Amino acid sequence: MQVDRQADPQMREYAGVTRTLAAFIAQTQWADVPEDVRHEAKRALVNYFAVALAGAHDPTIEKAVGVYGRFSANEHASLVGRRECTDMLNAAALNAMSANVFDFDDTHVPTIIHPGAPVAAPLFALAQTAPLSGEQLLLAFVLGVEAACRIGNAVSPEHYQRGWHITSTCGVFGAAAAVARAMGLAARESAWALGNASAQTGGLVETLGTMSKSIGVGNAARGGLLAALLAREGFAGPDAPLEGERGFLRCAASRPDVNAITEGLGREWALRANTYKPYPCGVVLNPVIDACLALHRETRCALDAIEAVELRGHPLLRERTDRPDVRSGREAQVSAQHAVAIALARGRAGLAEFSDAAVADPEIRALGKRLRFSDEASGSVESAEVTLVLRTGERVTKRIEAARGSLAAPLDDAALEAKLRELAAYGGAGVAAEPLLAQLWTLDAATDAAVVMRLAQAPQAQ
Amino acid sequence: MQVDRQADPQMREYAGVTRTLAAFIAQTQWADVPEDVRHEAKRALVNYFAVALAGAHDPTIEKAVGVYGRFSANEHASLVGRRECTDMLNAAALNAMSANVFDFDDTHVPTIIHPGAPVAAPLFALAQTAPLSGEQLLLAFVLGVEAACRIGNAVSPEHYQRGWHITSTCGVFGAAAAVARAMGLAARESAWALGNASAQTGGLVETLGTMSKSIGVGNAARGGLLAALLAREGFAGPDAPLEGERGFLRCAASRPDVNAITEGLGREWALRANTYKPYPCGVVLNPVIDACLALHRETRCALDAIEAVELRGHPLLRERTDRPDVRSGREAQVSAQHAVAIALARGRAGLAEFSDAAVADPEIRALGKRLRFSDEASGSVESAEVTLVLRTGERVTKRIEAARGSLAAPLDDAALEAKLRELAAYGGAGVAAEPLLAQLWTLDAATDAAVVMRLAQAPQAQ
Repeated sequence: MQVDRQADPQMREYAGVTRTLAAFIAQTQWADVPEDVRHEAKRALVNYFAVALAGAHDPTIEKAVGVYGRFSANEHASLVGRRECTDMLNAAALNAMSANVFDFDDTHVPTIIHPGAPVAAPLFALAQTAPLSGEQLLLAFVLGVEAACRIGNAVSPEHYQRGWHITSTCGVFGAAAAVARAMGLAARESAWALGNASAQTGGLVETLGTMSKSIGVGNAARGGLLAALLAREGFAGPDAPLEGERGFLRCAASRPDVNAITEGLGREWALRANTYKPYPCGVVLNPVIDACLALHRETRCALDAIEAVELRGHPLLRERTDRPDVRSGREAQVSAQHAVAIALARGRAGLAEFSDAAVADPEIRALGKRLRFSDEASGSVESAEVTLVLRTGERVTKRIEAARGSLAAPLDDAALEAKLRELAAYGGAGVAAEPLLAQLWTLDAATDAAVVMRLAQAPQAQ
Repeated sequence: MQVDRQADPQMREYAGVTRTLAAFIAQTQWADVPEDVRHEAKRALVNYFAVALAGAHDPTIEKAVGVYGRFSANEHASLVGRRECTDMLNAAALNAMSANVFDFDDTHVPTIIHPGAPVAAPLFALAQTAPLSGEQLLLAFVLGVEAACRIGNAVSPEHYQRGWHITSTCGVFGAAAAVARAMGLAARESAWALGNASAQTGGLVETLGTMSKSIGVGNAARGGLLAALLAREGFAGPDAPLEGERGFLRCAASRPDVNAITEGLGREWALRANTYKPYPCGVVLNPVIDACLALHRETRCALDAIEAVELRGHPLLRERTDRPDVRSGREAQVSAQHAVAIALARGRAGLAEFSDAAVADPEIRALGKRLRFSDEASGSVESAEVTLVLRTGERVTKRIEAARGSLAAPLDDAALEAKLRELAAYGGAGVAAEPLLAQLWTLDAATDAAVVMRLAQAPQAQ
């Protein structure tokens, strides 16, 4: 059915959203990006390489490298934390998958988009095949994150709630925007890149916790890169892939907030709402783990001295994480029972604590069974309260108002550095953390952004 | 938010839809397929090769071959109507794009899915890299079409109306199912293939009429093939990618008809509702063109003798095709003004009549301006009435009750053969139509299905 565009006042008002965004992508300069946003871009990249190094040898990635590797045209681009090289489309996909496989990557709070993986991966792959300075890459990254998150804002929260994996569905636009900028495309071609991305938006929440999820995240990175490469050759898209009558926004949500895409463009920046996880878990568990780690430090009580653990938090916490009987590390990432028990028992909450081995520990399983939830409807998702009920009858309570890693209590630069060091070691690829960190913090001064990828590659066997 | 699967009676009822479909894909034998459906599969393949030969040198395809070709791992698979070879993922994408680029491909009437392109393209690419008999390919094609169209039935009509390009969004499941069957995957791995496909479902109606559309259709073919290749290596998907709480069906439509996926499985066949277009236009124009061609034959009247043309039809006809001022052949495919004028003027309605050159003809434009619509709310979309109002005052009316190419008046085998002959010549690749037709009609007897691709390839330069 055709809708008369002129007769619909809403349509008229929104006409040109894609064009406005495309012009912003094509014309914004590094000098236009405020200092705090520039620094946040570097922080996001430190986090990106940390999580990509951790994920590089996960079984999902091993299998993907095996299959995707059979369809590699050349060896122009490297894989983070691995020895293989591959073509840039495959590198974009596989590196994005590695960075997201543990759900330990960054989170744009208003949308729950993990923007780092789909936007950074294609940019670094491009940098290995064409001259791209550190400053150019950082600018393109800032703009790609901006595009992905603004489009996400326009369709949130319905889009994710309905079941679309927003990191993938909006990530492909971010990747296309970033690569378009990095290649210096004009506004018209940048709009085509968004149009070519719109034909590739997909990914389902139902796949989370399974290997399939990674395909969607990899496709966002690969598809965005392909979208921009095609646009550069004159492969033309629709005028209004976002705001059109049958465009992405109306497919994605019943009542999209179309203005969210252009309002405050160049003044408000999505990276300011980007956060980094301290623990490899669903974000709602962050305050719970903070509380349990504090209780571990402060009480040092033996596990069999604990009769029960009471957990008070936002109803969403119970709804998302009341999973008493998990069987794998992947499932444990969204289990309050496991998170509480392991943090109390070990005083740590890293990847090793959310492994299959950790889940199999009978002491952890026994303690998890002694967890009781209670809802605190007035609370925020960033707060939680944990009470140890001891066999002596004593009660010890720890309340966290703003979880570590939230916007109110962000990880500082030192904590992000520590995360990269720990995850580089966890990944076991033999990548030296210090030179990589030094390069990332000074990336704006690098004449060739590809140097980062050489530092992030696993050393070749001697 | 978690939904308690057991507490929701609808969920309980539908549990296992993916599993049931996967078992059907894995276990159905050629002997289980009724004779009429077997023959319809061959007819669909004749139509597929006809349209792929026509599209193989369209500017969209030329550009796509240029960019995709830079990312080709090997030359195992050929392109219909072209000389280049590429790897099987690229061949799946590019051949599906060629077959769909003119919207001249097949149509599953209940869903408006064009199933041939996304399902046939990956199967023939696979056949060029692994032993696959004609019978095995035909069986896999039947099952792939079945999967795509049944999933489409479950989400129609809302899904397409909302703006999702159903050929792409459901085609990826069809491609995955077909390739899973052709590779002989077990039911569990076939379900994983559907899950891996679910992470890749996308494509927007907004892109129709632009080059971007082809990316979505190509991705459906490529993504489905990739989904099955990954599943074969143990790349595992979710239990319920279709019917799950955040699965495809609930993302795709507010109230999906989940039972449509399994009801009558093995008794009712989607291919029985598949049709083939006589003209390279939106299907609603079919009866209009039939009427105009008949008027041309029967009246032979000079264009300047026509004062006006009256067109009576279903309101959808006017809503979709009232486009008086089109600028390109692509736009002309959905313009009643152009279709009426060119059919009356030339007595033909093939690809040449819907080219940019045909659109630029001032006589055609002038006649198009003399078209008047009137709605016939009680009519069917397969009927239309065209009246010539001559300058003499005389009126000549032609009414078509069931358009050529509709389910009520399908193209017969001879008409499909003529379509392939005409489009092979139009494509200009020098592919000989007769050996290709002979091979397709006897494909069930071929020990190696890849022989078809060799016949459909453009001969190498001498």
